[in-house]
Amino acid sequence: MKVLIINGPNLNLLGKREPEMYGNITFDDYLKELRCKYPETGIAYYQSNVEGELINKLHETGFAYDGIIFNAGGYTHTSVALRDAVKAISSPVVEVHISNTASREDFRNISLISGVCRGTVSGFGLKSYELALISLLPDKSPEI
Amino acid sequence: MKVLIINGPNLNLLGKREPEMYGNITFDDYLKELRCKYPETGIAYYQSNVEGELINKLHETGFAYDGIIFNAGGYTHTSVALRDAVKAISSPVVEVHISNTASREDFRNISLISGVCRGTVSGFGLKSYELALISLLPDKSPEI
Amino acid sequence: MKVLIINGPNLNLLGKREPEMYGNITFDDYLKELRCKYPETGIAYYQSNVEGELINKLHETGFAYDGIIFNAGGYTHTSVALRDAVKAISSPVVEVHISNTASREDFRNISLISGVCRGTVSGFGLKSYELALISLLPDKSPEI
Amino acid sequence: MKVLIINGPNLNLLGKREPEMYGNITFDDYLKELRCKYPETGIAYYQSNVEGELINKLHETGFAYDGIIFNAGGYTHTSVALRDAVKAISSPVVEVHISNTASREDFRNISLISGVCRGTVSGFGLKSYELALISLLPDKSPEI
Amino acid sequence: MKVLIINGPNLNLLGKREPEMYGNITFDDYLKELRCKYPETGIAYYQSNVEGELINKLHETGFAYDGIIFNAGGYTHTSVALRDAVKAISSPVVEVHISNTASREDFRNISLISGVCRGTVSGFGLKSYELALISLLPDKSPEI
Amino acid sequence: MKVLIINGPNLNLLGKREPEMYGNITFDDYLKELRCKYPETGIAYYQSNVEGELINKLHETGFAYDGIIFNAGGYTHTSVALRDAVKAISSPVVEVHISNTASREDFRNISLISGVCRGTVSGFGLKSYELALISLLPDKSPEI
Amino acid sequence: MKVLIINGPNLNLLGKREPEMYGNITFDDYLKELRCKYPETGIAYYQSNVEGELINKLHETGFAYDGIIFNAGGYTHTSVALRDAVKAISSPVVEVHISNTASREDFRNISLISGVCRGTVSGFGLKSYELALISLLPDKSPEI
Amino acid sequence: MKVLIINGPNLNLLGKREPEMYGNITFDDYLKELRCKYPETGIAYYQSNVEGELINKLHETGFAYDGIIFNAGGYTHTSVALRDAVKAISSPVVEVHISNTASREDFRNISLISGVCRGTVSGFGLKSYELALISLLPDKSPEI
Amino acid sequence: MKVLIINGPNLNLLGKREPEMYGNITFDDYLKELRCKYPETGIAYYQSNVEGELINKLHETGFAYDGIIFNAGGYTHTSVALRDAVKAISSPVVEVHISNTASREDFRNISLISGVCRGTVSGFGLKSYELALISLLPDKSPEI
Amino acid sequence: MKVLIINGPNLNLLGKREPEMYGNITFDDYLKELRCKYPETGIAYYQSNVEGELINKLHETGFAYDGIIFNAGGYTHTSVALRDAVKAISSPVVEVHISNTASREDFRNISLISGVCRGTVSGFGLKSYELALISLLPDKSPEI
Amino acid sequence: MKVLIINGPNLNLLGKREPEMYGNITFDDYLKELRCKYPETGIAYYQSNVEGELINKLHETGFAYDGIIFNAGGYTHTSVALRDAVKAISSPVVEVHISNTASREDFRNISLISGVCRGTVSGFGLKSYELALISLLPDKSPEI
Amino acid sequence: MKVLIINGPNLNLLGKREPEMYGNITFDDYLKELRCKYPETGIAYYQSNVEGELINKLHETGFAYDGIIFNAGGYTHTSVALRDAVKAISSPVVEVHISNTASREDFRNISLISGVCRGTVSGFGLKSYELALISLLPDKSPEI
Repeated sequence: MKVLIINGPNLNLLGKREPEMYGNITFDDYLKELRCKYPETGIAYYQSNVEGELINKLHETGFAYDGIIFNAGGYTHTSVALRDAVKAISSPVVEVHISNTASREDFRNISLISGVCRGTVSGFGLKSYELALISLLPDKSPEI
Repeated sequence: MKVLIINGPNLNLLGKREPEMYGNITFDDYLKELRCKYPETGIAYYQSNVEGELINKLHETGFAYDGIIFNAGGYTHTSVALRDAVKAISSPVVEVHISNTASREDFRNISLISGVCRGTVSGFGLKSYELALISLLPDKSPEI
Repeated sequence: MKVLIINGPNLNLLGKREPEMYGNITFDDYLKELRCKYPETGIAYYQSNVEGELINKLHETGFAYDGIIFNAGGYTHTSVALRDAVKAISSPVVEVHISNTASREDFRNISLISGVCRGTVSGFGLKSYELALISLLPDKSPEI
Repeated sequence: MKVLIINGPNLNLLGKREPEMYGNITFDDYLKELRCKYPETGIAYYQSNVEGELINKLHETGFAYDGIIFNAGGYTHTSVALRDAVKAISSPVVEVHISNTASREDFRNISLISGVCRGTVSGFGLKSYELALISLLPDKSPEI
Repeated sequence: MKVLIINGPNLNLLGKREPEMYGNITFDDYLKELRCKYPETGIAYYQSNVEGELINKLHETGFAYDGIIFNAGGYTHTSVALRDAVKAISSPVVEVHISNTASREDFRNISLISGVCRGTVSGFGLKSYELALISLLPDKSPEI
Repeated sequence: MKVLIINGPNLNLLGKREPEMYGNITFDDYLKELRCKYPETGIAYYQSNVEGELINKLHETGFAYDGIIFNAGGYTHTSVALRDAVKAISSPVVEVHISNTASREDFRNISLISGVCRGTVSGFGLKSYELALISLLPDKSPEI
Repeated sequence: MKVLIINGPNLNLLGKREPEMYGNITFDDYLKELRCKYPETGIAYYQSNVEGELINKLHETGFAYDGIIFNAGGYTHTSVALRDAVKAISSPVVEVHISNTASREDFRNISLISGVCRGTVSGFGLKSYELALISLLPDKSPEI
Repeated sequence: MKVLIINGPNLNLLGKREPEMYGNITFDDYLKELRCKYPETGIAYYQSNVEGELINKLHETGFAYDGIIFNAGGYTHTSVALRDAVKAISSPVVEVHISNTASREDFRNISLISGVCRGTVSGFGLKSYELALISLLPDKSPEI
Repeated sequence: MKVLIINGPNLNLLGKREPEMYGNITFDDYLKELRCKYPETGIAYYQSNVEGELINKLHETGFAYDGIIFNAGGYTHTSVALRDAVKAISSPVVEVHISNTASREDFRNISLISGVCRGTVSGFGLKSYELALISLLPDKSPEI
Repeated sequence: MKVLIINGPNLNLLGKREPEMYGNITFDDYLKELRCKYPETGIAYYQSNVEGELINKLHETGFAYDGIIFNAGGYTHTSVALRDAVKAISSPVVEVHISNTASREDFRNISLISGVCRGTVSGFGLKSYELALISLLPDKSPEI
Repeated sequence: MKVLIINGPNLNLLGKREPEMYGNITFDDYLKELRCKYPETGIAYYQSNVEGELINKLHETGFAYDGIIFNAGGYTHTSVALRDAVKAISSPVVEVHISNTASREDFRNISLISGVCRGTVSGFGLKSYELALISLLPDKSPEI
Repeated sequence: MKVLIINGPNLNLLGKREPEMYGNITFDDYLKELRCKYPETGIAYYQSNVEGELINKLHETGFAYDGIIFNAGGYTHTSVALRDAVKAISSPVVEVHISNTASREDFRNISLISGVCRGTVSGFGLKSYELALISLLPDKSPEI
């Protein structure tokens, strides 16, 4: 099982930026823990602040990975181009947000990405990534 | 750990209604499996089609349970009263949707509930409930 | 042929409420006449002011009746949950309004119900119900 | 009893145009059947694709007929001039639509005609015309 | 001095239609009086309910007349094509309305015609036409 | 003099829910005081979280009481059905809010209830109920 | 016959301000000519840049004059208070604009004043005032 | 206890203007009665049609009075400057309306003042002022 | 290969109307050149200012021609009826505009026609027609 | 060099009103410092809460001063009349705001004044006035 | 003659992405054919998913090429910066779309690019590029 | 004192692009002058057309510089990601525009950046940068 986490703009500042909103753990530390906890899953990681590089990465990986966990940050609300990229690829994409975007500014209430993703996990802090990961894992118990 | 799942209007028809959208497993069957898989968690269940009864249930349980998993169905998009009820109680509430509401009609793009919930899980079929449940469980590995 | 008429909020006051808008005959009297005129059709009747009870009734009857004549009253303009309920059942539903909602307040211009009904009859006073009933009856003359 | 059916733009193509939406019977055939079934009612017919000719016809006939059944087609959603014509005449006008306009494009959700008609019948295929006709007929049974 | 009055849809019904709004004098009678009162001005007259015929007439006359007095009726609020026709010709066009459109329905608050006319006279009953006529006449007293 | 106070959704939690917004006195305690202070007025009380039960209560009491004091809570902003119920009855209804709804979320700025009430009292904490009560009492001093 | 012309904000600058839009004749000069041309009509004049003083003047004169010609300038588009003042008085008020407001900025397309005036004359330069004056004069020829 | 009533534009016409909406008692007469009924309260009064003078008065008195009862008339819906003035002062301000603004034109549905006032009393005729006054008085009975 | 060019309202004035926008060559002259340049293609032509006549022509020709080049002029932005006509026929329709409608008034930004045409060519002056013609021609070179 | 600072409504309360937003220095004190620092510039000052008096002052001074620094306060967002006054005069006007209006209520996001000013300085506290002043001064260094 | 084709985001996936919408030929193959067919025209090509690189390329080439054919993909609907870049350069730019954007999601109905381009070609599949190319070529036949 | 100027898309073309709007001096020349005039301030400079590179630069420098002067060009109106970047850093950011954006297209009226900047300077040509610089300098005169 190969999964890719893609983080969009400003998420490189995690642990540093507005800690009351985003917490004070860096993403690298979080990633280390996540890989420990899910040793059988290959978890790749990519971050860029450049919209077009995110599109490039989705194109490169979007026909090969078993799932992509995507936090598009501020591009979530404005990028038709990212929406098109997500729609164009075959790997399932799960949208993730750290904060509860619905309780913030009005312009964060609309996601152009959601409608072409498999699903959305939003508001659980860094744990949102883990929940997205679990959503992509095959169910261990055969019955569901 | 005591968790309550509350389902709103029309979710009693699961397995019967529009299976191409909602699947053909009933919620009772799903619940059985979920309880099997999480035997240490007490999972209570309530369903009502009546907005006010959902409010009543949130009041009754919202100061006692460790978490509430809430799929408000069609009331998600129209009910200020449910929003107020969620906000008024102290148990954390996680919003859940089976289908990806963002890819459906425009009037499903706005949730009046999200802004007062801890977080939202949407679009993973019945698995959305399990992800919501996990979001409420304490992390087993101490480090996260 | 089994048909059910469902009346929503405030329609229990017919004959009493705003007679210049709604006339002064009660629905029970009207129903009696309708049953007389269509003796071969079983016409059941249900009224509730509670949105969720209307949903319950649609669920209970919506897989068994040959047709449902539904006047959702004020819920017509606000209820996604009733829309979902109408869409979830298999009996054809005909939307009915006594008054011409298009000539009243702006917020009555949009019906959330219409799009999932077979058709709409609006503005003919109580006769709207009879027209809806006829729409559900098989055509006697074979040629249409 | 003299009734006039007026059909607006594109309805001359009935039976030919988008049969999955409008059926494949021509309006002439339907009219023949309708006249057979209601032999005591004089049913005149007029069709034009020209907005102003529809207005002319409403003016000519709108003080003489016992009722007008009017399907304004695409002008329904855009014509203040037709609205004014309907309002200016004394014969009652019943608005008719073959398809359920509420389940189609957004711009078909608003009718400028409805508010000045006696009532609306929409979504029953060609049978919508018959229901409109019945709405104009005097009730045979004295009691309603 | 040659002036043309053009009346749009439904204005042929003047004196007959909604007299509480439009008065009960016919336009022909009014025209007779106007010609009496302004004997030195040639006042031509044209009425049509057909949008395209109004455009044709504007084209035919719009390079020859000294002024055009135009009541576009219900097309005022919906016709980009009439706006284009008014803009395309060289004769000055004065917009006229009998009733005060600003105190009626919301959709009458916007005129697509006004912006390309020389000016607008609205709300003075039939006298609006006379005021428009005067606006086109040369000032007798040299000083203004 | 017989007056009824009706409280809508979540108002049963008064004294418990968000005390910084709604205070920490329960409605029962407040009611006791109010009855003490106005011993000559019969003050009945009803609370429900169910929209339809509020409608039922308005129907039952709305032709018998001298006045109804109504806090529709979150339904204020969304319920056409409650608006219709208030309009349908003959007792004067006074709208009441504890908090100043105008200084809160945008969706609380519109009340569907206000337009059919006699008047509105909003923002004075629990004292809003007393002011509404006084508005219904006959003026003791004859001159006003 | 006593008529009052009221000019609102910035109209004291006529002849000086943006001459390509408003011409280069001052209002005083124009007024002199108007009085010459209509010697039998008493034409009073008032100008203020202060919204409230315009209201005061409408109150003082609005029950005594035979007509008021009112150019509210920039207040036209923003003042509910002036609208209320015009509605509160009994003298007929005619709205006047020098320029064609419909061909300017969007915010000039809506007049809060029009709906409570007798009529509107707009776009004829200073001649708009004369047309408004004529609209108030009794018709000399008896027949109209 | 010193209270100031401030009336905004057109309220000087009370008893004269649109009596079917505002009644036919003048404010002076009403004020006399109010002072009689509340002899222990000093009730000052100010009225102006000028927005800026209302602001001046709020500044002058807004740090000294125990309460201000403010009917901003037509400025209610348009004045950010008055809103700022109310917010800038320390005396509590109660918003008052004589008529039920919610049942009138759309542009009266929004109050820019409400959000910065302590509360609002609307729709009770002149009695609205008395209710606002009572809202400012200390409760005689100690327990509330 | 048989192609029909249909021009809508005001396009008969080409070469005469607003030459800075539309150029000063007449459509007849242009047509002559086009036929010279494409001698193997039969190019029929029709122009009308009447919306309904355009619909009639689309009906008459829309099942026989190999392609229709359609400039709906001002009706582009307002006509649901023309949209329905284009959708109802089987010949491919290419939308054409002489000017770049996107750089003009806001109301020209929406085309009701585009969504049901094969494609759109806009802004190239009269050359737009030739480009549309080429779009309908079979590709000479086999490889594309 | 003669410059005029004009302050609009509520700015007379500076140092007193909402000090957390506007600071606690009075404008007079600030002005004294500003004049000290720019001794070669004549800095006149005017404040009024009355919209029309601001217009009067702009008219009086707007053809004589070398520059006007204008903080229109709450009128910024609502006054077409002030916009017209700024546009009508020849002195350059610089718009100033003390607070960052963009981070406050939505209705403060639109300035009707900006579009007709030379430029805007907003959000630097009282220093905004100094920056505006510098913008009007001739550049000392010849090269820019 | 030197022409540059610029393709924006996701267009590198042509032939691979959503073939039912975009076809299954790659752009490279198409380009080869186009160059064969127009051997006298130098056709350069550039593609990037990065908005800013598209701007860079427009700057570099926009003063040297005889024409630019630009498909901005998803940036078409959101990028003011690309609009500014197109406007800033001197080479004529032709907007191109493969699919008919007008028949897709609402957010694709607005193009921020169109208004500053020479013209638009949309909906003809890859042939749209060829039509755009022809629009830039000089007319071979002298007469057009 | 270390200050950084960041210029966004298309500002590299200054002196070349639309000189009637932006002047014909290049930014490099301007920068030289600015550094001459403020020799004690270290003025760094960065320009990119790539949104994500602007974010990168803000991250790199936004915890070290004493102030950042930021002209986001066309991204001003569309970029939530840049807004988030400005908010995430600790250096004060001053928004700058060369032209008066308020007098241009509607879509330039909203800035997503302003609300998280310290202040905005707009419309003074290149001098806007100098004013922004001064806003960041400590006041030399101790008293302000």
